[in-house]
Amino acid sequence: MPDGLGAPLFEPLFDRVALIGIGLIGSSLAHICRRKGLARRIVAADASKEVRTRVAELGFADEVAPSAAEAVRGADLVVLCAPVGAMGPIAREIGPHLAPGAIVSDVGSVKVSIVEAVAPHLPASVCFIPGHPVAGTEYSGPDAGFAALFHNRWIILTPPADADQKALARLSAFWTAAGANVETMTPEHHDLVLAITSHVPHLIAYNIVGTAADLEAVTQSEVMKFSAGGFRDFTRIASSDPIMWRDIFLNNKDAVLEMLGRFNEDLTALQRMIRRGDGDGLSELFTRTRAIRRGIIAQGQETAEPDFGRRAQEE
Amino acid sequence: MPDGLGAPLFEPLFDRVALIGIGLIGSSLAHICRRKGLARRIVAADASKEVRTRVAELGFADEVAPSAAEAVRGADLVVLCAPVGAMGPIAREIGPHLAPGAIVSDVGSVKVSIVEAVAPHLPASVCFIPGHPVAGTEYSGPDAGFAALFHNRWIILTPPADADQKALARLSAFWTAAGANVETMTPEHHDLVLAITSHVPHLIAYNIVGTAADLEAVTQSEVMKFSAGGFRDFTRIASSDPIMWRDIFLNNKDAVLEMLGRFNEDLTALQRMIRRGDGDGLSELFTRTRAIRRGIIAQGQETAEPDFGRRAQEE
Repeated sequence: MPDGLGAPLFEPLFDRVALIGIGLIGSSLAHICRRKGLARRIVAADASKEVRTRVAELGFADEVAPSAAEAVRGADLVVLCAPVGAMGPIAREIGPHLAPGAIVSDVGSVKVSIVEAVAPHLPASVCFIPGHPVAGTEYSGPDAGFAALFHNRWIILTPPADADQKALARLSAFWTAAGANVETMTPEHHDLVLAITSHVPHLIAYNIVGTAADLEAVTQSEVMKFSAGGFRDFTRIASSDPIMWRDIFLNNKDAVLEMLGRFNEDLTALQRMIRRGDGDGLSELFTRTRAIRRGIIAQGQETAEPDFGRRAQEE
Repeated sequence: MPDGLGAPLFEPLFDRVALIGIGLIGSSLAHICRRKGLARRIVAADASKEVRTRVAELGFADEVAPSAAEAVRGADLVVLCAPVGAMGPIAREIGPHLAPGAIVSDVGSVKVSIVEAVAPHLPASVCFIPGHPVAGTEYSGPDAGFAALFHNRWIILTPPADADQKALARLSAFWTAAGANVETMTPEHHDLVLAITSHVPHLIAYNIVGTAADLEAVTQSEVMKFSAGGFRDFTRIASSDPIMWRDIFLNNKDAVLEMLGRFNEDLTALQRMIRRGDGDGLSELFTRTRAIRRGIIAQGQETAEPDFGRRAQEE
């Protein structure tokens, strides 16, 4: 197919998929479900009336439900796509309305605290398999989604040890059909891995953009003008959704603080190298870090185009 | 013109432009000089025999000189495009061979230490106007250059207070014709501005990539797989030329350490917010940082495409 997403399935994997929370991820899931024929019926719910109206206008769902409880009625797959802090309250709301045998999953960026917040509200008749697609852009809301968001990205599933294997296989098939690669691990390990590959990078990006904005010796106009020196790269992830990221830091506190501690130790050593004029130490580090990017490119997780291929867009 | 660089000049601005050091910037300057007819003759020199051979093969210079001293003979514009630490030795070599009235400039990423290293070696008969084009990619070497590198980027000139105004106007016209916007400031202010817009961003990118590579609890394979969560953005600038960046940190020590101190103060405050669960403080910062990116995009220094427009390249 010209869009690289492959042909639609012969038979939908689910009858009724309920997406609870329609931001970037929820809307992208709706797009790919329709594009690939993953569900007979796509039902969307969102706490915001404005979002519900917009989803109805955009038309990527078959139905916009007035509440999460309404949306999940009769659904054989329910995916919670709300900010991490909203997951517990949503689970409490939908718990009594879930169909027996339904698979419940989520797309939250932390896993331990979501399991703690969600699992107690779900009946024993459903199968809860938490998930996290490692994919996104700096844009948010129902207009930001697109069908290819998960293409060649990883979805991490954190099934409980006693998870129903058929349900796990069905959910994996869903994500595979959406273009993603599936990996499973424990919630604890997920939270540690993502702390270094996602949460701390966002934290330091937010931090340096804040630092630059608050300087007196250098004006904001200068910061913007000369941002092509490297700074502008950081502004992309520092413009991600504030509520989503607030919730991530509040809910993955221990792993984030642990990884931040390692980052700080290393930064102190680097600072000392600069102060002492240790050129060999600096060039040794700067040479070593090149290999990591080469590996990421080789694994298809990054473009090899100079400057992320930005040039084409800017001209 | 289809490439957006405009028509060639009717009359070249310089007779003989000598480019000393042919990496990303030197080769890009040669390309744009030829593309826009900025010089009657482009002469290239490089300390590495391998680079000289490659430059001759690539054919973007009219002449490859065997030494910097040979290259500058009769040149009315000499641009030093070598790593910061090589600037002083090059100036000592070329000083006696410079033509009276020549303009000497450079493209180094720091300015105070270059002025100190270069100026003493230049005869009074030449005009030294240091410069720094705030443009680049993560690639280096003579194959990495392209004519559009400076298009809509800023060139910062740091002319001495008594600089010849005609020479300054001529050098400004050269960069303007190359597509750049010209700004002038003192070398001291330049070094402070670039410390926050370029040097500290590179430092923390190198640092987090190093931290991630050294973890035991998370494998390098996991870091690469799940890098789309934000980490991969940092690997781009952390794969920049190691020697160039070693020299920058050794030569802009004070400003880098000052800005790094501010970064660390802010990071400590942010760390405390996470530890204390201060959600309002976090979302206040995360909302504020969005505005900076919007400003950078509005000023034409960044693409508004989601994910830097990466998606197109990856599929």
